[in-house]
Amino acid sequence: MARPPKLIDTREKKNRKLTRKDVQKAAKRCSNWGRWGKDDELGTLNFTTPADITAAMQLVKKGKVMSLALNYDERGPQGGKTKYPSLGRFNPIHLMTRTGTDAYSGVLDHRKIRGTDDLVIMGLQSGTQWDGLGHILYEDYMWNGYDCRNVTSAGAQKAGIEKTKEKMTGRGVLLDVARAMGKKALPDGFAITNDILDYTEQKQGVKVRRGDYLLVHTGHIERCFASKSWDGYPGGDAPGLAFETVDWLYKREVAAIATDTWGAEVRPNETEDTNQPWHWIAIPMMGLTVGEIFWLGDLADDCAKDKVYEFLFVAPALPITGAVGSPVNPLAIK
Amino acid sequence: MARPPKLIDTREKKNRKLTRKDVQKAAKRCSNWGRWGKDDELGTLNFTTPADITAAMQLVKKGKVMSLALNYDERGPQGGKTKYPSLGRFNPIHLMTRTGTDAYSGVLDHRKIRGTDDLVIMGLQSGTQWDGLGHILYEDYMWNGYDCRNVTSAGAQKAGIEKTKEKMTGRGVLLDVARAMGKKALPDGFAITNDILDYTEQKQGVKVRRGDYLLVHTGHIERCFASKSWDGYPGGDAPGLAFETVDWLYKREVAAIATDTWGAEVRPNETEDTNQPWHWIAIPMMGLTVGEIFWLGDLADDCAKDKVYEFLFVAPALPITGAVGSPVNPLAIK
Amino acid sequence: MARPPKLIDTREKKNRKLTRKDVQKAAKRCSNWGRWGKDDELGTLNFTTPADITAAMQLVKKGKVMSLALNYDERGPQGGKTKYPSLGRFNPIHLMTRTGTDAYSGVLDHRKIRGTDDLVIMGLQSGTQWDGLGHILYEDYMWNGYDCRNVTSAGAQKAGIEKTKEKMTGRGVLLDVARAMGKKALPDGFAITNDILDYTEQKQGVKVRRGDYLLVHTGHIERCFASKSWDGYPGGDAPGLAFETVDWLYKREVAAIATDTWGAEVRPNETEDTNQPWHWIAIPMMGLTVGEIFWLGDLADDCAKDKVYEFLFVAPALPITGAVGSPVNPLAIK
Amino acid sequence: MARPPKLIDTREKKNRKLTRKDVQKAAKRCSNWGRWGKDDELGTLNFTTPADITAAMQLVKKGKVMSLALNYDERGPQGGKTKYPSLGRFNPIHLMTRTGTDAYSGVLDHRKIRGTDDLVIMGLQSGTQWDGLGHILYEDYMWNGYDCRNVTSAGAQKAGIEKTKEKMTGRGVLLDVARAMGKKALPDGFAITNDILDYTEQKQGVKVRRGDYLLVHTGHIERCFASKSWDGYPGGDAPGLAFETVDWLYKREVAAIATDTWGAEVRPNETEDTNQPWHWIAIPMMGLTVGEIFWLGDLADDCAKDKVYEFLFVAPALPITGAVGSPVNPLAIK
Repeated sequence: MARPPKLIDTREKKNRKLTRKDVQKAAKRCSNWGRWGKDDELGTLNFTTPADITAAMQLVKKGKVMSLALNYDERGPQGGKTKYPSLGRFNPIHLMTRTGTDAYSGVLDHRKIRGTDDLVIMGLQSGTQWDGLGHILYEDYMWNGYDCRNVTSAGAQKAGIEKTKEKMTGRGVLLDVARAMGKKALPDGFAITNDILDYTEQKQGVKVRRGDYLLVHTGHIERCFASKSWDGYPGGDAPGLAFETVDWLYKREVAAIATDTWGAEVRPNETEDTNQPWHWIAIPMMGLTVGEIFWLGDLADDCAKDKVYEFLFVAPALPITGAVGSPVNPLAIK
Repeated sequence: MARPPKLIDTREKKNRKLTRKDVQKAAKRCSNWGRWGKDDELGTLNFTTPADITAAMQLVKKGKVMSLALNYDERGPQGGKTKYPSLGRFNPIHLMTRTGTDAYSGVLDHRKIRGTDDLVIMGLQSGTQWDGLGHILYEDYMWNGYDCRNVTSAGAQKAGIEKTKEKMTGRGVLLDVARAMGKKALPDGFAITNDILDYTEQKQGVKVRRGDYLLVHTGHIERCFASKSWDGYPGGDAPGLAFETVDWLYKREVAAIATDTWGAEVRPNETEDTNQPWHWIAIPMMGLTVGEIFWLGDLADDCAKDKVYEFLFVAPALPITGAVGSPVNPLAIK
Repeated sequence: MARPPKLIDTREKKNRKLTRKDVQKAAKRCSNWGRWGKDDELGTLNFTTPADITAAMQLVKKGKVMSLALNYDERGPQGGKTKYPSLGRFNPIHLMTRTGTDAYSGVLDHRKIRGTDDLVIMGLQSGTQWDGLGHILYEDYMWNGYDCRNVTSAGAQKAGIEKTKEKMTGRGVLLDVARAMGKKALPDGFAITNDILDYTEQKQGVKVRRGDYLLVHTGHIERCFASKSWDGYPGGDAPGLAFETVDWLYKREVAAIATDTWGAEVRPNETEDTNQPWHWIAIPMMGLTVGEIFWLGDLADDCAKDKVYEFLFVAPALPITGAVGSPVNPLAIK
Repeated sequence: MARPPKLIDTREKKNRKLTRKDVQKAAKRCSNWGRWGKDDELGTLNFTTPADITAAMQLVKKGKVMSLALNYDERGPQGGKTKYPSLGRFNPIHLMTRTGTDAYSGVLDHRKIRGTDDLVIMGLQSGTQWDGLGHILYEDYMWNGYDCRNVTSAGAQKAGIEKTKEKMTGRGVLLDVARAMGKKALPDGFAITNDILDYTEQKQGVKVRRGDYLLVHTGHIERCFASKSWDGYPGGDAPGLAFETVDWLYKREVAAIATDTWGAEVRPNETEDTNQPWHWIAIPMMGLTVGEIFWLGDLADDCAKDKVYEFLFVAPALPITGAVGSPVNPLAIK
């Protein structure tokens, strides 16, 4: 087996040389606009076929269901401080509208039933989440060339997350990059290159294929969780995908990708000209649905143990009409 | 095949003779308290074994994914008027915190990325939903005999919905009671008895087994949806499970049940002494997780066509810490 | 005294002849842009001088404080149905985060204090409210000629309601148009013309002056409240100010105006070309802060009794940074 | 003039000797239960008479309106870290539902008006605020001896803040304790004793009377604001009223009191047995409405300049039905 590819650290200035022109070229090169017709609102989720789904079922051998969600509560990961400007996101606010203490106090009995109710106020990007195709825009356009003015204060008139409601099922593949590189958690600023993805595949003996749901484990979220502070996590420096992986993903034709970091791509970014350049290409140009803040540690441990890196993946978004993202409880079933 | 069982209509006074004592007896008869240990917070979800999950995968033949969720938006089903006192529930409020119109207007460009964000304010019982084990109390108790004061304004300290995060996967079975009874939609006040469940099984040639996720189709939600008004739906009269089905479900040992109505059981209830007596038994005594407002029409049509009433069911709750319910995008995969 | 002016009913087609050109001319005629400098964010609130405030204090003779606010709760006035498209506004949602039932149940005692807490989710235009100067735009402009793109998803960067925090105090004058016209409540579609305003002043023996807070009583809100249904109130047909009153208000130099209707101006509007044409002029061109859904009935009764139509008016907006409106508990003190 | 009273610093253990018994005695001694009848829901707000209100108007000489509110936004003061357990309060979340960028983008024009709308999600105790009489309970009771179970998840059925809607107007008196003690801001743990209140009155040449709205300036909020961090402010150590001031306030019969700190009374408290013992007496026993997080610095400067410490005070709560508190824009008018 090949030697592990060299580390690229974007905290070093010399690794931040990506230009606006590079981004523009990639936009052209990796565009899937029109690929599924001018009315498409699903993008790469189209890659998964019914046959892929049926085949994915055969990957389930143990009957073991693993949740890849961080619980939604006031404990994080929003609110962590970083050196970057805040996006104003906050942790879920869970509120009760009827309680067991009401019941105990006898104040519900006029209803002749003792029931409780609750509600949540939740940023759709605040925890384990899908970024929908309306979440990032390229210039004045959204996915498939739709005018960006389709995302108004009233929500996304095109490519809302509710359009995906019968997707998000297929073969899941975990690339445990952290382990492949011999680490528990990759350090901040560590760029996962195409070579590293190839190397991890090779090392794991698995191949990412068209229509797959690809999960990339960096160990970042476990590192923060273990430190009992989310400072640095939301929007801060992190390991993540190198910009060049847009080509790798384009070629491999994955259905969607998810990582255990706040923003999928490496931070600092490989450029100071644009913020999150990988997102500029992946979402609006390629039509790639992106999962973030996935809890991949337990799955990674399981895979390391049984050496099986493929599984049934089911992660249905909540069909909130016009939403540009969705919280999700993604399941890996082995 | 047997003749269809007789209709029982609870809108007639004579069919409202259930007493408080009957409810108490059923509470005793159908209790699962302690069955999975004194610390259990999952109830009947425990019935599904890894082997059941693996077996359920084999039911997928077509690779067809069907969502059983109504979209979450301001169009309903909350806000419909009924003769019963309101529970104060409201439709999801989806709000944007950054938009494509902001992007178009150039006001986001200082961030060097054009992204949108959103949030939702959502009653956890407002649309397609799981009722968790903290949602209904029996006297001063919740599931497994926990003190009802465990559900405070700070949420459910016991049996919160987040505990189910690795459940909700297994064999799904649809009992299309509406079709079995020769109707598109059952009328309001129509009580689905144990005989009717047996009859529907027999007619469909399917058997509900331990650990199954049972879906009961009444056609009620499609009837309301087609009428373009939700008046009467949330909390109003409806077809639904007869009280006696608590015994049927107890015996069959299903993992969970879901219907296409607002409240699973028949309305008016079979008694005026208690409100929703079936809930009193099913949730806190039996430990049964209950799905409501499921969109079962398309699945029912598909099953009627291919005569296959079993499928893989995956319907992960959002793990909102301390929640007594959860919105859900349930998937039936055939 | 003059005879009462003739009724104009905009439900009749012939009274809907206002053109876009008329609106444009009024925009020019009634513009206060630049009047208080190019950086002004207060508009006509500038009219009230310290001397006016001191003088207003002398109007208080009885020490009687009257609230002009409808309570904020789920009972209305939002949710009422109308024939016009909905604005998506909803009634305030008040939620408890700690309760007396929690206290009674003993679950708060670890804090060594039994306290309760609460929060509200509230449309700033959902009840008794000030429309701030960012609430209505004229073409691509807001008040004082600011670019309308100053009101982004992040709020109003110019003329936010918080700028008014030391305003909203002065002489209040009630024009009880309903009583002057011999009615308890004016009918829907009844346009209050300049002649009617003059006539009411004359009949009441009061004169509206520069810097005043003008309250116009139509009786509409009491009519709806008494009917126990808000259908027709939010956004529906209503009595209200004729378009021509923009000139009257411009000339009189009032600080602000408030009415007891949902939208101040007559509905149907006097044109079908523009929606709420009076708003187009009053707010962005004239810089007039507008109060709506004020509860004026009790004040009107009091004024009718003591024949005194002037009083101290104090109605501070909540200084929510970047807000385009604010709920308010306006006080008339006599 | 007397020498300034001695400093008592509750950060020293020896100053934390208040016992539960002391609190119980004060509860008895300072109780106003029944004073205004068994149905009273206003407490000490009853002290202000119409004549007091009329007299207060005469205090206005300059026509100068000063707001005592901190703006409501995401910048604070919630979210500051302290060593005490968090109360889960968060800063106001202001959201737009229609924007100027929507207008600019042309997406609103089908409505024939370019308007913006917004909403807020706001803890009623999150910023400048009134604590209503339902906010603190004494054992199983609330103000006037009402059962504490009147404050349910559905809100306060007794003594909700909406009951005060025609109160909160009267003579305001500022006691600038910080200046009287020769400081810009009192240090944390500094207990304001009865002697200090008397001394400040004497030094300022003003007397607090029955029915007054008493404002106590410690400089704490300006100190935090100037430091650009709210760490330590919400719930942390602070200067504030000594426990014994409940007797002073009881005797003086003030209508309400407000301070510029998070919690009115000194922190650390004078005991470890109870948390916020002053609150236990002031709110449920005495029926005293308490203002917190008031911005008193500008008013204090003005008073120091003109040597006038009395003024018209108008601070109407938002009448949110069943609320235990309210945000407020309090006005001091001189």
